[in-house]
Amino acid sequence: MAPPSKPRRATVHDVAAAAGISRGTVSRVLNGGYVSAEARAAIEAAIAQVGYVPNTAARNLVMRRSQAVGFLALEPHSLLLDDPNIGAIMLGANEVLSVADHQMVNLVVDSARDTERVARYLSGGFVDGAIIVSARTHDPITRVIAELGLPATFVGHPPDLHRSIPFVGIDNVGSARAITTRLAATGRRHLAMIAAALDRDSGADRLTGFREALGDRFDPRLVAEVPLYDYASGVKGMRELLAREPRIDGVFAASDAVAAGALEVLRDAGRTAPADVGVVGFDDSTWALRTQPPLSTVHQPAREIGRNAAELVLRQLRGEEPAPGNVLLPTPIVWRDSA
Amino acid sequence: MAPPSKPRRATVHDVAAAAGISRGTVSRVLNGGYVSAEARAAIEAAIAQVGYVPNTAARNLVMRRSQAVGFLALEPHSLLLDDPNIGAIMLGANEVLSVADHQMVNLVVDSARDTERVARYLSGGFVDGAIIVSARTHDPITRVIAELGLPATFVGHPPDLHRSIPFVGIDNVGSARAITTRLAATGRRHLAMIAAALDRDSGADRLTGFREALGDRFDPRLVAEVPLYDYASGVKGMRELLAREPRIDGVFAASDAVAAGALEVLRDAGRTAPADVGVVGFDDSTWALRTQPPLSTVHQPAREIGRNAAELVLRQLRGEEPAPGNVLLPTPIVWRDSA
Repeated sequence: MAPPSKPRRATVHDVAAAAGISRGTVSRVLNGGYVSAEARAAIEAAIAQVGYVPNTAARNLVMRRSQAVGFLALEPHSLLLDDPNIGAIMLGANEVLSVADHQMVNLVVDSARDTERVARYLSGGFVDGAIIVSARTHDPITRVIAELGLPATFVGHPPDLHRSIPFVGIDNVGSARAITTRLAATGRRHLAMIAAALDRDSGADRLTGFREALGDRFDPRLVAEVPLYDYASGVKGMRELLAREPRIDGVFAASDAVAAGALEVLRDAGRTAPADVGVVGFDDSTWALRTQPPLSTVHQPAREIGRNAAELVLRQLRGEEPAPGNVLLPTPIVWRDSA
Repeated sequence: MAPPSKPRRATVHDVAAAAGISRGTVSRVLNGGYVSAEARAAIEAAIAQVGYVPNTAARNLVMRRSQAVGFLALEPHSLLLDDPNIGAIMLGANEVLSVADHQMVNLVVDSARDTERVARYLSGGFVDGAIIVSARTHDPITRVIAELGLPATFVGHPPDLHRSIPFVGIDNVGSARAITTRLAATGRRHLAMIAAALDRDSGADRLTGFREALGDRFDPRLVAEVPLYDYASGVKGMRELLAREPRIDGVFAASDAVAAGALEVLRDAGRTAPADVGVVGFDDSTWALRTQPPLSTVHQPAREIGRNAAELVLRQLRGEEPAPGNVLLPTPIVWRDSA
C-alpha cells in the first residue's frame, strides 16, 4: 500500500488566488515591502484561509510578530547580584517560552535613562509581550505597557491602575502569618521582624501578616524597617533590633538574604540560633541552605511563578477567551534548623 | 544682539535633491518600503552628505540597525543563580551601552533548543552586536557570530577559531600563581587546590598557575577536580581532599563560591580557618565578604570587564580603525582573614 500522500503545502500562488491580488504584490508584502492597508488585510486573511506558512522572518513582518517576549525586573539592580529568586523566575519563564519557540529578552532597568529607552523598545515592536517583576504604579514602563495594550503578566500583585493585566503571585499576608505563628509556637516571647521593601506590596503584606499573627502581642518597637530584601539590610536591621531590645528571642526576616545577614550579627553578638534566638526567613532560595544553621522559611515557588507568568503571556498571544485570570501559587513552610 | 540662529535641520527634500531621486521614493525608503539596491545606496549616501537625521525607527530600517546589543553567558544556567560575577559584568556592560543609547538584551541559553533559537535570533537582525561570556569553540552561537561577522566581544579568552573577535579578560595563570605564592608564604606545607571548570580556559589556567607557583612541591593527588565554579562543587571538592590527605593546611579554591563551600566542610570537620587551614578564593565577588572569616582572594574587576566589553562592541559599530584589540585588566590580591 502506498503511504498516505503528504498534504500539499500552500504556496504564495494559493494566497494570491484567494486574495484576488497579484503574486508579485503578495511576494512584496512577504518581503516587508510597502502595500496599502486594504491589500495587507486581504493578504493576511488569505494566508489564514489557505493555511500558508511563510518563513519565520517573512511571517514576522506580515503578522507584526517578533516571536520575542521581554522580561523586566523593576527592582534595584543590586538585587540581580543578591537575589537568586529573580534568576529562578527568569529561568522558569524561559523554559515555557522556549518550548513555544519564543525568544525571551531580558531588559535591565538600572537608571532613568534605561527606563526611557526600555519604554521606547517595548513600543517599537521588538517584543510581542512582556513579563514584569515588581511592577509599580507610577513606573513609566508599567504605563507604556498598559497604554500599548501589550500582552503582559505581572509577577507579584499589580498596581491598582492596571486591573486588566493578569498577575502571578503568592499570598504574602497568609504566608507571613503562618510562619510567624509557627515561630511563636516554639515558645518565643520577644518576637521581632526585619521588615524590608515596605514600598512594595510584598514587603507591606509580610509585615501585615506578622502583625496579624501576633495580635495583642505585636510591639511596633520590635519592627526594624530596611530598604531592600538583601543581606546588608539584614545586618543593619538586626543591629538596630538588638540595640533596642536585647531580650529578643525570635526574628522573622522578610527574606532569606535578610535572615542570613541577621544570623551573622547574632553570631557576632555571641548568640546562637536556634538556642538563643529562633530565626525564620522567606523565599526558600539558595540562601536558605547556605546559612549556619540552615533556615526555616516560606517556600516561594520561583521557577513555577516564572513558568506561569510565561503561560499567561502566551495565552494572551493566542487570543484565548476568556482572557486569563490571576494565578496564586501555594507557599508551604519548610522547617529546618534555625528556629 | 539676536541669538545665533539654530542651524536648519536637513529634511527629506534635501536628501531627495542630493540623491537625485523623487521625494516620494525617499519617503518610501524611510518608511521601510521596497526600492532597488542602487536607489537605496544613493539615498544612504545623500543622508550622510546632508546630515539628515530621520526618526529612530525609520533610521533603523534604512541603516538596518536595531540599536540593540545582545548579552549572552554560555555558562550552565545554574550559575545565573549562584555567580554574582555574571550579574556584575552585565550591569557594567549595560552602563556603557545605555549612555550610548543602545538597548542591551540578555539572552538566556539554557538548552539545545535555546541555542538554536538564539542563533536564529542573532542572525535575524534583532541585534547589531553581541557580548559573549565564556564562548566555546564548538558552540553553534560562537560559530554563527563568526560567520555573520557580527560585531562582538568575548569575555574571557576566546576559542582559537575566532582570532578576529576581540576579548576582554584577565591573566588567570598569573593571578593564580600570585595568590598561591602568597598562600605558601604563610608557612603552609600541604597545599591543595579545588580546580573547577577545567573545560574552560579560565579553569585550566588557574590550575596551571597553581602548579607553576608550587614547582617541585606540586602534588597532583592534592588537586580535586569539580565541574562548576559553585558552592556545591566546593563542598564536594573539599570532602574529597580531606579524605585523601587529612594533613592539608592550605587550599586554593577556583572561585569564591567554591571557597565558601570548602569553608563549610572544614567547619563541619572541626577545623578552623585560618588557624588550621588557610583558604583563598578567586573573584572577590559578594561571596567573599559573606564567608566566616571573610575570604582572601583575587579581585576580578567584573564591572570593568563588562564596561570594556561594551566599549569594544561600540567601537566596532562605529567602524573605528584600526579594529580594537584585546583588553587585559589587572587583578590585585585582596588579603582578608581566611588565610
